[in-house]
Amino acid sequence: MKIAILPGDGIGPEIIAQAVKVLNVLGESFELETAPVGGAGYAAHGHPLPDGTLALAKAADAVLFGAVGDYQYDTLERALRPEQAILGLRKQLGLFGNLRPAILYPELAGASTLKPEVVSGLDILIVRELTGDIYFGQPRGVRECPDGPFKGQREGYDTMRYAEGEIRRIAHVAFQAAQKRGKRLTSVDKANVLETFQFWKDIVTDVHKEYPDVALDHMYVDNAAMQLVRAPKKFDVIVTGNMFGDILSDCAAMLTGSIGMLPSASLDASNKGLYEPSHGSAPDIAGKGIANPLATILSAAMMLRYTFNKNEQADRIETAVKSVLAQGLRTADIFEPGTTKVGTEEMGNAVVKALA
Amino acid sequence: MKIAILPGDGIGPEIIAQAVKVLNVLGESFELETAPVGGAGYAAHGHPLPDGTLALAKAADAVLFGAVGDYQYDTLERALRPEQAILGLRKQLGLFGNLRPAILYPELAGASTLKPEVVSGLDILIVRELTGDIYFGQPRGVRECPDGPFKGQREGYDTMRYAEGEIRRIAHVAFQAAQKRGKRLTSVDKANVLETFQFWKDIVTDVHKEYPDVALDHMYVDNAAMQLVRAPKKFDVIVTGNMFGDILSDCAAMLTGSIGMLPSASLDASNKGLYEPSHGSAPDIAGKGIANPLATILSAAMMLRYTFNKNEQADRIETAVKSVLAQGLRTADIFEPGTTKVGTEEMGNAVVKALA
Ligand SMILES: CC(C)[C@H](C(=O)O)[C@@H](O)C(=O)O
Ligand SMILES: CC(C)[C@H](C(=O)O)[C@@H](O)C(=O)O
Repeated sequence: MKIAILPGDGIGPEIIAQAVKVLNVLGESFELETAPVGGAGYAAHGHPLPDGTLALAKAADAVLFGAVGDYQYDTLERALRPEQAILGLRKQLGLFGNLRPAILYPELAGASTLKPEVVSGLDILIVRELTGDIYFGQPRGVRECPDGPFKGQREGYDTMRYAEGEIRRIAHVAFQAAQKRGKRLTSVDKANVLETFQFWKDIVTDVHKEYPDVALDHMYVDNAAMQLVRAPKKFDVIVTGNMFGDILSDCAAMLTGSIGMLPSASLDASNKGLYEPSHGSAPDIAGKGIANPLATILSAAMMLRYTFNKNEQADRIETAVKSVLAQGLRTADIFEPGTTKVGTEEMGNAVVKALA
Repeated sequence: MKIAILPGDGIGPEIIAQAVKVLNVLGESFELETAPVGGAGYAAHGHPLPDGTLALAKAADAVLFGAVGDYQYDTLERALRPEQAILGLRKQLGLFGNLRPAILYPELAGASTLKPEVVSGLDILIVRELTGDIYFGQPRGVRECPDGPFKGQREGYDTMRYAEGEIRRIAHVAFQAAQKRGKRLTSVDKANVLETFQFWKDIVTDVHKEYPDVALDHMYVDNAAMQLVRAPKKFDVIVTGNMFGDILSDCAAMLTGSIGMLPSASLDASNKGLYEPSHGSAPDIAGKGIANPLATILSAAMMLRYTFNKNEQADRIETAVKSVLAQGLRTADIFEPGTTKVGTEEMGNAVVKALA
């Protein structure tokens, strides 16, 4: 079980350290190797995804990823900016299947900006396609506008594209995830406007024939954004493209008010995966020892479940996290009067203790 | 003051009737002419945007639009479906500037799914570009995938495009709107991934030089979706492209919990405009006399303000709407115990009475 550890920038190193501590007490034999990525990759080797880091990630069975981005890299040209590392890893490792749970632990219902009755007990899984769509579609660039009323001016352009096989494989991931949960899948598209998503809808409908036990419905992306705010608990699994998934998964995560709790998995065709917290690198609190490590620890649990098929160990970690919450321990981001505020390291230690 | 009245489908005719009643008691001389659009256009003339309807809209100074869409048109081929009428009108009339306020009236704070302290007094204006972007960009379609690992398969594709002049003109609309409000503008993009939106960001930054009194910031669309849920009152004016604007404006509208109250304007370069409620045609409640006409009545107020420069009359209508809310009158969608439930017609009559 070879794991590439990529801490990245900002709070990345602090939160990754807690997840590593948790992995080390499970009694399994992991082979862990660390490499710099994002701004740290640029600082060390002049590129956000240095060759050595990419090679390590390719050779590993799984990647545990912290977060990337920090102020001092904001003015670099786009190709060198930290977030290119994550786009590069997804594409180079073929990590097309992004699983982003949005779960609201009952103890944290107060953290949400939504009324408790609307969100408490929320448990949605967003399945986002991660290597296609307008994120990677060619051609793209800035050119002279070739036609229409603005002909001759400069224009920026990109290409949205989804091939049949790309849609089929993410649809299979989503239907199978739904089978293991509430057996309801909502495919989010914009078929009333986009050719790509009319095609998406047709293919998802076709794949549905292989999953008669799952109830499928289709929803336009603008309506999905509304329904997430109006009645998020009505969703079970949502599947959508890369761009819509980027927006909706962040919206869903924020509904919980506790994005510091949310893990994610990005999987290839053989369940090799990259695991990372859903939150960012939070450079404003980096080094202060106050970041919430639970999303990263829960990402390690997803890794055990999806890549290493160690469901029991994954359950152990998830139970330990629930128990520290039940004990009333909270990092600053989820603190409420009446609970006990702890730092990053104390929280990690509490999970380790709960595992014992 | 020639106004084309396009009631459309579902609750469209009922709510438009109330807005027309309001216009008729203002003491102005409007020339109103009605034509079918959407499903009603298809039923009458075989097309959602019949030639006569388009000609009427072109000849008018403003269009007052109800809503389109009903179950029986769902299975038509895409080109004949009701929503094509609205896309056609936007494009044919050059209505590139969409103004969508998300306002939460203090009396209705309880209707939101968000906690009152997060949303009460919310007053955001979303400025959405409406005739460009991936909505209309060519080429688009379904073809044989020309390259990459899925070469030879079918693929759906669309083109995102924004020319410099297109971005400049919507930026001017947004900066000018911000000048009349809180003087803060957030431009929403995805410059970290899309060429189109790096270009968008550059042009908006350039236009900003002409509006030194407005504070401009830039935000990624995924973060904007999060911030709308987390702290929506931090926004003043948001400007974005057609696709992102579709998603974010619906999300913002739903934050209020009272989308039945929200008007919208879609303007061309000389302030000719199409005015419509932000909600849809709600075929499930059509004909029952229970739909909320206030968004349509407030759309008529926007028409007086933006197309006809009749600010005083617009103010009168807005004040009348506030007064019926203060009287405790509510249609079913915004009803709460302790208020008085009224139907569509009663609500329209109450506004007329408040105007007197
Ligand atoms: C950093 C950025 C390129 C990335 C994305 O848009 O996919 C991020 O927002 C995410 O969701 O992981
Ligand atoms: C009906 C549809 C084509 C339209 C859009 O996507 O623009 C609608 O959602 C809107 O926002 O007015």
